[in-house]
Amino acid sequence: MQNVRLGIIGVGNMGKGHIRYLQAGEVTGVTLVAVCDKLESNLKWAEEQLGEQVLRYADPNAMLDSGEIDAVLIATPHYSHPELSIACFERNLHVLVEKPAGVYTKQVREMNEAWEKTNVKFSMMYNQRTNPIYQKLKDLVDSGELGEIRRTNWIITNWYRTQSYYDSGSWRATWAGEGGGVLLNQDPHQLDLWQWTVDMMPKRVRAFCYFGKHRNIEVEDDVTAFVEYENGATGVFVTTTGETPGTNRYEVVGDRGKVVIEDGKLTFWRLRESETEFNKRFTGGFGSPECWTCEVPIVGTNPDHKGIMQNFVNAILHDEPLIAPGEEGIKGLMISNAMLLSTWLDDWVDMPIDEELFNEHLQKRIAESPNKGG
Amino acid sequence: MQNVRLGIIGVGNMGKGHIRYLQAGEVTGVTLVAVCDKLESNLKWAEEQLGEQVLRYADPNAMLDSGEIDAVLIATPHYSHPELSIACFERNLHVLVEKPAGVYTKQVREMNEAWEKTNVKFSMMYNQRTNPIYQKLKDLVDSGELGEIRRTNWIITNWYRTQSYYDSGSWRATWAGEGGGVLLNQDPHQLDLWQWTVDMMPKRVRAFCYFGKHRNIEVEDDVTAFVEYENGATGVFVTTTGETPGTNRYEVVGDRGKVVIEDGKLTFWRLRESETEFNKRFTGGFGSPECWTCEVPIVGTNPDHKGIMQNFVNAILHDEPLIAPGEEGIKGLMISNAMLLSTWLDDWVDMPIDEELFNEHLQKRIAESPNKGG
Repeated sequence: MQNVRLGIIGVGNMGKGHIRYLQAGEVTGVTLVAVCDKLESNLKWAEEQLGEQVLRYADPNAMLDSGEIDAVLIATPHYSHPELSIACFERNLHVLVEKPAGVYTKQVREMNEAWEKTNVKFSMMYNQRTNPIYQKLKDLVDSGELGEIRRTNWIITNWYRTQSYYDSGSWRATWAGEGGGVLLNQDPHQLDLWQWTVDMMPKRVRAFCYFGKHRNIEVEDDVTAFVEYENGATGVFVTTTGETPGTNRYEVVGDRGKVVIEDGKLTFWRLRESETEFNKRFTGGFGSPECWTCEVPIVGTNPDHKGIMQNFVNAILHDEPLIAPGEEGIKGLMISNAMLLSTWLDDWVDMPIDEELFNEHLQKRIAESPNKGG
Repeated sequence: MQNVRLGIIGVGNMGKGHIRYLQAGEVTGVTLVAVCDKLESNLKWAEEQLGEQVLRYADPNAMLDSGEIDAVLIATPHYSHPELSIACFERNLHVLVEKPAGVYTKQVREMNEAWEKTNVKFSMMYNQRTNPIYQKLKDLVDSGELGEIRRTNWIITNWYRTQSYYDSGSWRATWAGEGGGVLLNQDPHQLDLWQWTVDMMPKRVRAFCYFGKHRNIEVEDDVTAFVEYENGATGVFVTTTGETPGTNRYEVVGDRGKVVIEDGKLTFWRLRESETEFNKRFTGGFGSPECWTCEVPIVGTNPDHKGIMQNFVNAILHDEPLIAPGEEGIKGLMISNAMLLSTWLDDWVDMPIDEELFNEHLQKRIAESPNKGG
């Protein structure tokens, strides 16, 4: 294959964004050949933008069966991601799926299992993994510069949303429509980066979610979570859509120092000698290891969505390693599922979570809700 | 009275510090007339520093009964604060007590009740309440500039202590000797400021303390706590003695903006219109109220210990209002007791705490410990 023939399912806000940079030729080795959407208005928009040569479908299966495409970008509502991905895998089509991977890990696990039986490429649209500032943090962790991780702390409260935003779609912020609130809709990137940058998943989670606290919605709009990792490290994640101007501050503490990412800047406080070694040899009572404040250069800008798209295309054409392998989408989702489940049980939740139990709780909330719009 | 005759109980590190500024004449209206310590070496140090005219006692009651003093500064180990304060109150002597007020709230409540029967002045040595940066935050809250409080978040991890520090005294970091770790020894100022600046005590506490996690000690050296307030606000408090360089960052979010105190600087993000009002009237989907980043001037420096001492003396002589009334010492202590109890019970703890239950747990740990040194 020298060129990937791409189809897009979902021509909503996200789908339109992807179409724009593809149409502008900002990704090489790929041609947009087909789009699919249930809404006539979205297909009409596509026709006006793309002309007659790009095929238009109302039925995803018709597009998948057309023989005209090699790969699919899925940009539909959250719940449908696994089902549509599986339909692609069954036809041996490569898949790039928007975040989140799905709403509950049971369906995402089935998606991952379906992919394992194929030889196609499968990627998540985690377009913050291409952000050089988070790549640099991962570099400092992976290379051992930060030492063993002791603590993580992410305050991500700059997701301000008004009631007017929530009222703009009947499916918004409902259990049936989105399956969650700030954790499912706003935080998937941070939840992914939180585990990806330090290469550790929490071992257990104790979280405190509030539902419709700041807005007239039924899902969570305010969350504080505490986690423990296998190596004894602990972490805190604080998020809400109810505050402004909000904060986006990610702190990671290791045995050899501390990193803070805030306001687009990464600062590394580097211990000349690891804390463990210093503590072992020091006999002077009060004292601490020498510490250097390092401003670490962040080279380049985030290629963002088109960076992930290019990587996906290169993976198909040249077997380039994926930046955001699709099967890793379950990780951030499991953390968010665990936070909800911990709140519902008012107790600790061990990882991996009891997927059946989570789904029972979710289905119960969907059944009890007056908002059935999908 | 035109001049306060002061006696000091406890000529250890803290007591010596107080003696130095008193001897230098940095507080007016007070004369140091007596000191008391069990250790001959400390009394010898006092004799060399202060000369013969300052009386020296080994027995606190002998000093309190001498008729030579009007007021007492108590700078002894934590456990003895309530008992010594009560002895002073019984003799109608004014009391200024070092932090913490005591180790468990039951004993501190008895101290407060003994004081209520007197007409003497009673103050805590909360020398961070005189820090103009925290006074400014309190001013912004009290004056309504910040609006109703939504969230507090204090990361106070710059209390690095080595094993060598803990090994420097057999009473250090033991249940019998100090009755707690980082919460009792390092954090009392922050625990007091946390409730004083926002004028709210938590309604319930869910905390995660780790005991001897970073050092070979039996008390807590790593704590993350989550709290709920009566008005629906939430808060997080993260502290440890095991990290370096550590962080001291206090964020308070209100309906009218956000304040962050870090690196000796206070920044106020001021919403021109309250979030509540904006949300009520806004119909545009995505949007947020206009926000100004304000650098608020912090005038003056912290007079610190001598500021509290001067205030205490002025209260006695001129009825000046106390900055840190003694009966408020129970507040920060109750928060720290609640954090320990929540960990021991692995559950929520409602405020005010069950004091008997806390004390039972504490006494059990003292009984089971090999470290009985007081």
